Amino acid sequence: MLVVQKFGGSSVADTDRIKRVAQRIIETRNAGNDVVVVVSAMGDTTDDLIALARQVTDDPPPREMDMLLSTGEQVSIALVAMALIAAGCPAVSLTGAQAGIYTNGIYAKARIVRVEATRVKQALREGKVVVVAGFQGVDGAQEINTLGRGGSDTTAVALAAALRADLCEIYTDVEGVFTADPRVVPDARQLTEISFDEMLELASLGAVVLHPRAVELGKLYNVPLVVRSSFNNKPGTLIREVSDVEKPAVVSGIAHDSNVAKIGLFDVLDQPGIAATIFSALAAEHIDVDMIVQGAMRDGRNDIAFTVKRNDLRKALDVIATIKDKVGAKGYTFDEDLAKVSIVGAGMVSHPGVAAKMFDALARAGINIEMISTSEIKVSCIIRAERVADAVRVLHAAFNLSQNG
Amino acid sequence: MLVVQKFGGSSVADTDRIKRVAQRIIETRNAGNDVVVVVSAMGDTTDDLIALARQVTDDPPPREMDMLLSTGEQVSIALVAMALIAAGCPAVSLTGAQAGIYTNGIYAKARIVRVEATRVKQALREGKVVVVAGFQGVDGAQEINTLGRGGSDTTAVALAAALRADLCEIYTDVEGVFTADPRVVPDARQLTEISFDEMLELASLGAVVLHPRAVELGKLYNVPLVVRSSFNNKPGTLIREVSDVEKPAVVSGIAHDSNVAKIGLFDVLDQPGIAATIFSALAAEHIDVDMIVQGAMRDGRNDIAFTVKRNDLRKALDVIATIKDKVGAKGYTFDEDLAKVSIVGAGMVSHPGVAAKMFDALARAGINIEMISTSEIKVSCIIRAERVADAVRVLHAAFNLSQNG
Repeated sequence: MLVVQKFGGSSVADTDRIKRVAQRIIETRNAGNDVVVVVSAMGDTTDDLIALARQVTDDPPPREMDMLLSTGEQVSIALVAMALIAAGCPAVSLTGAQAGIYTNGIYAKARIVRVEATRVKQALREGKVVVVAGFQGVDGAQEINTLGRGGSDTTAVALAAALRADLCEIYTDVEGVFTADPRVVPDARQLTEISFDEMLELASLGAVVLHPRAVELGKLYNVPLVVRSSFNNKPGTLIREVSDVEKPAVVSGIAHDSNVAKIGLFDVLDQPGIAATIFSALAAEHIDVDMIVQGAMRDGRNDIAFTVKRNDLRKALDVIATIKDKVGAKGYTFDEDLAKVSIVGAGMVSHPGVAAKMFDALARAGINIEMISTSEIKVSCIIRAERVADAVRVLHAAFNLSQNG
Repeated sequence: MLVVQKFGGSSVADTDRIKRVAQRIIETRNAGNDVVVVVSAMGDTTDDLIALARQVTDDPPPREMDMLLSTGEQVSIALVAMALIAAGCPAVSLTGAQAGIYTNGIYAKARIVRVEATRVKQALREGKVVVVAGFQGVDGAQEINTLGRGGSDTTAVALAAALRADLCEIYTDVEGVFTADPRVVPDARQLTEISFDEMLELASLGAVVLHPRAVELGKLYNVPLVVRSSFNNKPGTLIREVSDVEKPAVVSGIAHDSNVAKIGLFDVLDQPGIAATIFSALAAEHIDVDMIVQGAMRDGRNDIAFTVKRNDLRKALDVIATIKDKVGAKGYTFDEDLAKVSIVGAGMVSHPGVAAKMFDALARAGINIEMISTSEIKVSCIIRAERVADAVRVLHAAFNLSQNG
């Protein structure tokens, strides 16, 4: 079997942990597998490098920042390869460039455009464990790009796809995917398995065990992912395409996100292109808009409300101020103390009444719902931030998630 | 003018020093020059990385060590480029690979085989200061090689040669080349100018201001070098080919090396190949032999004495023990408390009696000479280690070096 194993910064935070990681890699190899390893920078290295840059300038140019930050993973791969070789396991470290990770030239948040795995395959044929620097790649001009948030997870899944790996294991400091955040719901249960779509919803809904980019890539190339802890040998949670013959759980988990702000525009013109005007203007400022709700039309006018991350609120309000007349809005409001709670489950689509059950449970707990949005496998409600923990507990109980589904 | 400026680790030891280095680069550029900068790793970075590797294994593989160490310079170039850009000076950092520094694939002590400066030239045409990582290059397989001792100086001179630069400035923590070590001779005088050959002798004789590799390269491609301090604006010492029309100083400086041990073999056979046998055996163990003296032949037998670095003595003695019968030596002795003192001057060749004057000065000071070796521009004497400081002072006075020559 060909296995790609990704180890995050906390798993390689110091040389003792690096030696432990090496032992785990060797066990996987001794079990008869070919192993490709992707590592992040050690512990706080990236933060330390950022701090160093800030000592030089308040506004480091992205290209030079990528030149600087990419050294973090390069240090990790060299040390992990040394630990493997010292333990008698043939290994070779490869930078993103050497591993053929080609990116689109966007500094600080590049996307992988292709993986030329020739050199990785050659090293595997030579019986070596290949240790690849996560979070980085090069563009056509050999310029170093970093991949931004979730970068190392994405490197691992992209390599697994390019190598047609049987499995991509993401080692992290959590034991897997839970039915809700264990810090909020003490009896939250770990899921043994979940579908890519459910994982995508959970990830994008703030239960960030694995970055959505990596999950999307896994879904796209159908690479089974396992999220597990690097500090114990528990099996973790398997993320894969669910086949039709299985009966998926109605509700797999409760996700929440406490970093939500809302902006509402009243009485915008009900004309084609109005929504486009608003959301293109926000996109142009790189503001991620999450939930969008358009109210019922009244005499040719509309209300539009949407949510953004709390720290994007000011920037978003500036944008709205500049376009409000253009879209004919009578005015706008905002609210920055909101949160989002969501139920996620691939079985929902075939079970009407799931949403109603959610609203009822929240109502019984006296939790007011400010916005609602639904997809085939999730229902999300925007509520007051101070009630989010209550909401998660109430829903976890209402859908009986502490019992094995 | 096109100027290459090299800044060592102490010149970029922290972000404040990096900002000062940026100011100096900008001054050079504002004076109307194109500037290419070569930097070493910050302060103790390289030692810290080595320590990190040793925590993982006692015997780090050279390839992985180079992968690890090359990050040190990469951090420096990013920070220096950031400092320049923050100060309004267009700049771009380039790794050894990006700068087209191609090496011979020998990890930890690679040699530069060629420089493909296309990208550096392009960046200069775009009006940028180009900041290149010293001490590193890549081989044909894009494997990262480090250049070993004197690596960053060598990178700077190699780039200057490839770019046909008008000048290569080596910024360091000394103010230039002196007539003798100022710590030994308080009235030692800084030389405004010295020839490549003299500098080579001084460097190889322990007065290491600039690594011999870099001086050799400067001589080979006739790149004028300036050694100067990065902590003040003093002019430093210019190292260049001396033209015939000039009248070179008879003696430019006194060099000394306190790290000398001697091995003597008695009564070796006087046959072709005997010396070859001895010194090939030593070379095979990577023992640098410095001075070799073959005594007068007596009835078909010879004495051969040579010097090595003190810390190579044990290894050298082991080698001698294995070959002594093969070369028919009656026996051998060693002495590890020796030093070498040398007078260096391009004018010597045309001034007979310089050596005699040296021996006389030492004799008057009661300093016994154990071995002598001469070249066209230097005379070296092996003496007791405890007299080396006296010897340097005596010779500095005898040749009147504290007066401007």
